Amino acid sequence: MKRSHSVRAMEASRATSTRVPVAVLGATGYTGVELLRLLARHPGVELAFLSSEQYRERRVTEVYPFLRGAVEGTLCAPEPAAIAAAADVVLSALPHGAAAPLVVDLLRRGRRVIDLSADFRLRDPGVYARWYGVHALLGLFPLARAGVIRDAVIVDAKSGTTGAGRGAKVEQLFAEVNENFRPYAVGGHRHRPEIEQELRAAGTPAPVVFVPHLLPVSRGILSTMYVRATGGRPPLAELFAEAYQKEPFVVLRGEGTPPELREVRGTNRCTIGWYWDAPGEQAVVMTAIDNLGKGAAGQAVQCLNLLLGLPETTGLEAPALAV
Amino acid sequence: MKRSHSVRAMEASRATSTRVPVAVLGATGYTGVELLRLLARHPGVELAFLSSEQYRERRVTEVYPFLRGAVEGTLCAPEPAAIAAAADVVLSALPHGAAAPLVVDLLRRGRRVIDLSADFRLRDPGVYARWYGVHALLGLFPLARAGVIRDAVIVDAKSGTTGAGRGAKVEQLFAEVNENFRPYAVGGHRHRPEIEQELRAAGTPAPVVFVPHLLPVSRGILSTMYVRATGGRPPLAELFAEAYQKEPFVVLRGEGTPPELREVRGTNRCTIGWYWDAPGEQAVVMTAIDNLGKGAAGQAVQCLNLLLGLPETTGLEAPALAV
Amino acid sequence: MKRSHSVRAMEASRATSTRVPVAVLGATGYTGVELLRLLARHPGVELAFLSSEQYRERRVTEVYPFLRGAVEGTLCAPEPAAIAAAADVVLSALPHGAAAPLVVDLLRRGRRVIDLSADFRLRDPGVYARWYGVHALLGLFPLARAGVIRDAVIVDAKSGTTGAGRGAKVEQLFAEVNENFRPYAVGGHRHRPEIEQELRAAGTPAPVVFVPHLLPVSRGILSTMYVRATGGRPPLAELFAEAYQKEPFVVLRGEGTPPELREVRGTNRCTIGWYWDAPGEQAVVMTAIDNLGKGAAGQAVQCLNLLLGLPETTGLEAPALAV
Amino acid sequence: MKRSHSVRAMEASRATSTRVPVAVLGATGYTGVELLRLLARHPGVELAFLSSEQYRERRVTEVYPFLRGAVEGTLCAPEPAAIAAAADVVLSALPHGAAAPLVVDLLRRGRRVIDLSADFRLRDPGVYARWYGVHALLGLFPLARAGVIRDAVIVDAKSGTTGAGRGAKVEQLFAEVNENFRPYAVGGHRHRPEIEQELRAAGTPAPVVFVPHLLPVSRGILSTMYVRATGGRPPLAELFAEAYQKEPFVVLRGEGTPPELREVRGTNRCTIGWYWDAPGEQAVVMTAIDNLGKGAAGQAVQCLNLLLGLPETTGLEAPALAV
Repeated sequence: MKRSHSVRAMEASRATSTRVPVAVLGATGYTGVELLRLLARHPGVELAFLSSEQYRERRVTEVYPFLRGAVEGTLCAPEPAAIAAAADVVLSALPHGAAAPLVVDLLRRGRRVIDLSADFRLRDPGVYARWYGVHALLGLFPLARAGVIRDAVIVDAKSGTTGAGRGAKVEQLFAEVNENFRPYAVGGHRHRPEIEQELRAAGTPAPVVFVPHLLPVSRGILSTMYVRATGGRPPLAELFAEAYQKEPFVVLRGEGTPPELREVRGTNRCTIGWYWDAPGEQAVVMTAIDNLGKGAAGQAVQCLNLLLGLPETTGLEAPALAV
Repeated sequence: MKRSHSVRAMEASRATSTRVPVAVLGATGYTGVELLRLLARHPGVELAFLSSEQYRERRVTEVYPFLRGAVEGTLCAPEPAAIAAAADVVLSALPHGAAAPLVVDLLRRGRRVIDLSADFRLRDPGVYARWYGVHALLGLFPLARAGVIRDAVIVDAKSGTTGAGRGAKVEQLFAEVNENFRPYAVGGHRHRPEIEQELRAAGTPAPVVFVPHLLPVSRGILSTMYVRATGGRPPLAELFAEAYQKEPFVVLRGEGTPPELREVRGTNRCTIGWYWDAPGEQAVVMTAIDNLGKGAAGQAVQCLNLLLGLPETTGLEAPALAV
Repeated sequence: MKRSHSVRAMEASRATSTRVPVAVLGATGYTGVELLRLLARHPGVELAFLSSEQYRERRVTEVYPFLRGAVEGTLCAPEPAAIAAAADVVLSALPHGAAAPLVVDLLRRGRRVIDLSADFRLRDPGVYARWYGVHALLGLFPLARAGVIRDAVIVDAKSGTTGAGRGAKVEQLFAEVNENFRPYAVGGHRHRPEIEQELRAAGTPAPVVFVPHLLPVSRGILSTMYVRATGGRPPLAELFAEAYQKEPFVVLRGEGTPPELREVRGTNRCTIGWYWDAPGEQAVVMTAIDNLGKGAAGQAVQCLNLLLGLPETTGLEAPALAV
Repeated sequence: MKRSHSVRAMEASRATSTRVPVAVLGATGYTGVELLRLLARHPGVELAFLSSEQYRERRVTEVYPFLRGAVEGTLCAPEPAAIAAAADVVLSALPHGAAAPLVVDLLRRGRRVIDLSADFRLRDPGVYARWYGVHALLGLFPLARAGVIRDAVIVDAKSGTTGAGRGAKVEQLFAEVNENFRPYAVGGHRHRPEIEQELRAAGTPAPVVFVPHLLPVSRGILSTMYVRATGGRPPLAELFAEAYQKEPFVVLRGEGTPPELREVRGTNRCTIGWYWDAPGEQAVVMTAIDNLGKGAAGQAVQCLNLLLGLPETTGLEAPALAV
């Protein structure tokens, strides 16, 4: 494959010689496009290969005109040989079924892969899986680590629609979601075992009651978590401060101050608030993330930065588009 | 005061001689307007007096043109003598501060009063207070009555913006609510003691952890409730059926089927779904109401029907405007 | 086909003996469901047959739980013999391709058909086509009839999403429509020739520049029309009053008072405002309808009333759900 | 006034010595906050003074937590002496009444001022007024300059709610705007004379029929313009290309391709599409901007760049947050 078909960031001021060529697979779904938005101005990488089955052979700016001036090139089928020829690192926003064999092939070819699919859990050293379910775990981890969780943890999650992907489904039509709100997948969401597994790893084998709800917003997940504590009121402020004081993307809102979705829109941040409900003997922990940011593309770019030895915040510094 | 200044329903086909003249106080707030919408076509009442401080001396159809052809008349100041002269029954959508002395005065004049203010709790036999907090209590009452609630009950409530009234506040501006979602009043909402009081009355003195959230929708409250049960899995389907099989406005969605806001929009219904989370040993109960319907004006009309000896559903039969 | 499979309105108080049995074809699309919502409480008809290809053999209240207590029965395939056996009048919300042969067959069987498809224009005496494009024509008709339109008429239309139907399309997903606004079908919308044809019929063969836009709302079409006038300022108030003073569903908002979408939501109304722009020598006419009401199901019910010799407003009296 | 009270951008990597200290007045309104969002990462300036009457003495990150890590400091009253001591350039997002005397004072003190108020039109050499109404003028300017506009120009504008500011007004409440759409200020918007003045300056003294509408979105203005042309079809593609080929912030979508709001969200871009309507003899021109970007804060930063001799695009390169 010739490099002339690859995609290059446009700004003349960016010296591409020192940039790492990366591929984005599934570049036209909601997560893929968010990766393009973030990587278009990332100083350490060059967008060298973009795949899209649906829009193959079309220019990316024809499909997404808002990317004019930021990203260039033609969308290709995800051929392993072509990807490996063009890119050193591969970010895959493909769903599991499509991703798995491709990832294996790319690993064999010596490429490093950051996989964003929800289900992929290869424990292969070349694969950098994102910490899925992270949005709830960031709120629970400090409590799990401190051993103060008494019994079942309740996670009441409210998510925007882009989390369901860009596939054409009746239940995701505007008129079905607008002015509506509903729980879904009650009793059987895939996040439940993931959160339970991570709590166990942190030392607390508690069951998780997980109820997701669909919000009439495009982006964001706000989770309200209820944790009965052993041994009375835990030192919540201290536990959160200890866990996250060095984390650039976790913002503690403090006691009694709830987070809100808009403060994380377009960012890789997780904001956390909490309070102690004395009569109920519960710690109430509230977290907000952008599902396309910290929940997907932002987290992947953070992972990419670590992989490349760059400062963790590279390309992720822009404040939220709060209004 | 002359009747000629009062408000009359317009349709010629309605024989006003057999209708009960009613007054609506606070007729131009969100709850007041919903009362007008419902009562305009109610066969048993005549809209005989409408008060509005903000729009006094203006025609109601000038303020709300959509009521043309349905409601007529001029908005007046809420003078007790004029109200008592015009109406037999008074529905007050005024806030507590404004309502209390007026209600006392109207009771002395022998008028019956249905008070929709959140705070008013006169135990006077002439006052018909709505069962505030009803939206959550309908989900909890069957469990409380059966004595299966083990300890603290969690109520995670998500509400539309009309619940905050029509006052001009920055935090209720479109651009503050749109594409946003946030908990509010964490740790101190007035519903908490109300729900606890009613649970106690039903035989279960459990603390209630109540966290309300603001949804970017105009109407509706969806509450997700988490109840740890004594003695293993309670017979949820039976408990709900027993409690509500004769209730015309409670719709049981059944095991594993969550309600959604749109199915109650514009109605006096409460829809209820539930499931048993075995690992967490929790009953999860989900309820949906329209805060202007079952949460305010609809409930008041239901109360009015009982007061007038009419079928409970009179004027409340219209299906939801689901889309 | 046995009647036992047909659909019956539930309310015991409704004496079905005097009701006309009607069929609704395409009952689970947005227009079909709006027909069910309106006809469920219509005193002159019985819902006797409901068709849905997508949900055949399922109960209508299973697909749309909000209809519980209002509509009953099982959704069937649209077999002409079964439809004709069950119903005297057929309302078809099917798209043209599906509707045309079926309508012909039903006409042969002596059934009367009200066809809501956009494209169907059978000039057969048994078919009662709705006056499509009516939302714009109601604003232009008085001017066309008076002969005051000078040259090209501009119709700038803004529509909610349900006008595009309930098919699963990426461009109708919540995240594509929300917080967005865009013109579509520029230069080639099918309404253009329809409006031009009707203007010609009213005596004014003017070209129509028609630009539709997609609004992030579920229901409604607001059209702003710009008309250069011959012979100076036309007597706009008089022309509109003459044309519509006897029309129960047209509400004139008057000089300088624009209509708004919310005042027609859920109704069969068209509200009209206008002003004269002296420097531009233009009449600006603004109309609002609910695309599922006056634009589809409401108009069909009005047509049905005329067909059955009922008052035109039967079943269409409910005020708008304005908030 | 001591500099220690001023506001400093936080990132350690930014060498403040070479940055120009700027003040933002009215920093907590929608336009002010957008200025902070853009300037927080602008490499050529230091945020040295932020004023807010409403939130004076409070930290900016307390009022807007999403700015943590990006902007620091305490909001002050807009005292001319303090402003002049802290800043070389002043960006004022104050309304006219508040801005005028302050601007005069600051000019006397030798400060350069970029005024974003809608009404301010000081022709003083120190004041850099934004080109208000620019969103429509960018679509009309090439036609006006070419002398092809025949008579009255029609501008049908649809705007998001932040254009009305962050003041608490009932008509801007969520439940008043949501699921609604309406024209406003019909016949008398202040933009009309501004656009007419600029068209005159470009050689075409045509009247402008301007009808603004309120969209249920937070950001954006999409304008659809109708222009009857002299001498047949004008070479639209050529006229637009000539006018804007060197403009970094104007994106031509081309013949028949309409712009949409989401493609400019958060940017300083104006996207333009057009087509020729042959039967109507009209050029239809469609433009999209973000009212807080190209319509306010973005335009001000572009102006600031020119003032400081920086590349025009500095700090304005981020792609749209399109979803």
